[in-house]
Amino acid sequence: MSEKQAPFAERSSFWMRGGGPSADVIVSTRVRLARNHKNVPFPPEMAKEHAEQVLSLARDLNDCLRRDSEGEYVFDFWPLSELDETDRWVLVEKHLVSPQLVKTAALSGVILRSDDAVSIMINEEDHFRIQCLFPGLNLTHSRELAQQVDHILHEVVNCAFDEQLGYLTTCPTNLGTGMRSSVMAHLPGLVMLNRLEDVISGLSEIGATVRGLYGEGTESRGDLFQISNRITLGQSESEICANLQAVIGEIVRKERSAREEAYGRRRDELEDKVFRAYGILTNARMIETKEAMRLLSALKLGRDLNIVTHVSQDLFSQMMIRMRPALIQSRAGTSLDPRQRDIRRASLIRNALLDS
Amino acid sequence: MSEKQAPFAERSSFWMRGGGPSADVIVSTRVRLARNHKNVPFPPEMAKEHAEQVLSLARDLNDCLRRDSEGEYVFDFWPLSELDETDRWVLVEKHLVSPQLVKTAALSGVILRSDDAVSIMINEEDHFRIQCLFPGLNLTHSRELAQQVDHILHEVVNCAFDEQLGYLTTCPTNLGTGMRSSVMAHLPGLVMLNRLEDVISGLSEIGATVRGLYGEGTESRGDLFQISNRITLGQSESEICANLQAVIGEIVRKERSAREEAYGRRRDELEDKVFRAYGILTNARMIETKEAMRLLSALKLGRDLNIVTHVSQDLFSQMMIRMRPALIQSRAGTSLDPRQRDIRRASLIRNALLDS
Repeated sequence: MSEKQAPFAERSSFWMRGGGPSADVIVSTRVRLARNHKNVPFPPEMAKEHAEQVLSLARDLNDCLRRDSEGEYVFDFWPLSELDETDRWVLVEKHLVSPQLVKTAALSGVILRSDDAVSIMINEEDHFRIQCLFPGLNLTHSRELAQQVDHILHEVVNCAFDEQLGYLTTCPTNLGTGMRSSVMAHLPGLVMLNRLEDVISGLSEIGATVRGLYGEGTESRGDLFQISNRITLGQSESEICANLQAVIGEIVRKERSAREEAYGRRRDELEDKVFRAYGILTNARMIETKEAMRLLSALKLGRDLNIVTHVSQDLFSQMMIRMRPALIQSRAGTSLDPRQRDIRRASLIRNALLDS
Repeated sequence: MSEKQAPFAERSSFWMRGGGPSADVIVSTRVRLARNHKNVPFPPEMAKEHAEQVLSLARDLNDCLRRDSEGEYVFDFWPLSELDETDRWVLVEKHLVSPQLVKTAALSGVILRSDDAVSIMINEEDHFRIQCLFPGLNLTHSRELAQQVDHILHEVVNCAFDEQLGYLTTCPTNLGTGMRSSVMAHLPGLVMLNRLEDVISGLSEIGATVRGLYGEGTESRGDLFQISNRITLGQSESEICANLQAVIGEIVRKERSAREEAYGRRRDELEDKVFRAYGILTNARMIETKEAMRLLSALKLGRDLNIVTHVSQDLFSQMMIRMRPALIQSRAGTSLDPRQRDIRRASLIRNALLDS
């Protein structure tokens, strides 16, 4: 490939533009469909030639997808073996592929729509994982787009499907629709009032799960939590989304009321926290990811509560991604140590804030 | 007294205006003379009537001092019993009287020149303690002014003096000249490079002492240290000052070279520290004295190293005093709890910085 300078590092993903319904609490929505080819062993059992067969199908799929109905978006296929390590981690940081996909980079790949609203992981846990990412609370749009892509995928791939069970997947928890829908929720109010535990145990009872920012087993940073459905079997795609929509609606309501309550009870402390975050982010010359996430989270809360108004709406979604190590590395061109990244991160955020 | 609104709370002391020789390292210089009346028992042994006798002499002394030779400055006598608790602590915070003087407020007093360059404590450890405070490194001027005041004091007070020992004082360490000269030094460079211990032990060997910001037994805050002569006997006033001048000159040199070295070796870290301090001080909505001192110290260092240039030269000297609890209380009019003081402190510093 000649155009090896991967364009997905610099470009702003659709979901990173911010806004969308309930954007004060829900940063983004993702719907994912797991699909496998019926005549090829599933990834855990797959030999090299099987993986190559799937990669070849992915190339065909990309050709079918290349332009959408409006002719506006363009799809690209990237075998991970053709990307350098930094670009692979850029994909992870932008939430376009899982860390697991990078671990099997020799035989995996990704198809991306030019606005990153669609990404299809090839040879992760399943042969194909269609993912659609939208800003705000957008389960219906995400599901509809995923189903459009799935429709095209069916033209290329003879999917493993059982009349009783539905779509067959590597992990039994994904059987049936193969769908998982999730949102990334910003819950500083519930965190401040120590109410998150209650909310999480409530979610668990109704079949939803809460995880850290980069999926299973990862830590939450910046008061961000991934909330997803756990049940994929015995419900239709639209039922799953409707159920999750109701659950998320309830969380949005609880988070908003927690913010109001916290602001009412501890107005000075909250304003102090928000303005200090602003002061540090607009002045620091070195900053680590963890601290930056904490401060950006406080600043987002301050913007949503109208404590600070001169901060652009997409700043949080943009910066929480753009400041990550691989993205900073990718932009630099030369190899950076962590200290040099901290310097560039501080400068990136400072300039974004002072321009906004 | 009708004009009970003590004017010394709001006014800016001469030394707080900043500047003076070696102002980058030496914030202020103080020369103090201890004097006692020969026919009145010394404070530890003094009955109430003796104390009142001294207060009466102080009133006479104030009348003699009332205007200086230029007719520019006016002296005022304040019996501490006529000041409320807040105003007494305002005097302490402005370094015009010692905490000890406040403890015996019923029988103590202070004479102040209208620019606070001269303060005379009455019935502290000795009957009279003349103190002269100048900005920067100003031992000669401070000593000369103290001696001028001492000359006038001798017109009113028959001083306890021994041909062999010199001036007699309550504590034998003050015998002789009764003089102690000291400077308030800002030593962030030596602190950063962990060289302060060496400097202190070196000072100790040549008869100088290092103490915290508010005298004996107090903690250092904001990298500020009080350095004074320990020997008062067997040397003339000008010899004491010349010796201390040489010692301080050496410390100034060491501190400046430590700053250069620290800035050379850890430029990014130092700039980060300075700008973060600026960011927090211009944005915080609540701040405690201790944190504010730490940040103001970083900002002063940043100004002295030309890392930040848009901060007025007197900001550090002004704010390190004006932000203290009693001064904030005094300005408020109504009674404040610590939290309310933290809010006003943040606002005071923020506005001073944004105006400067």
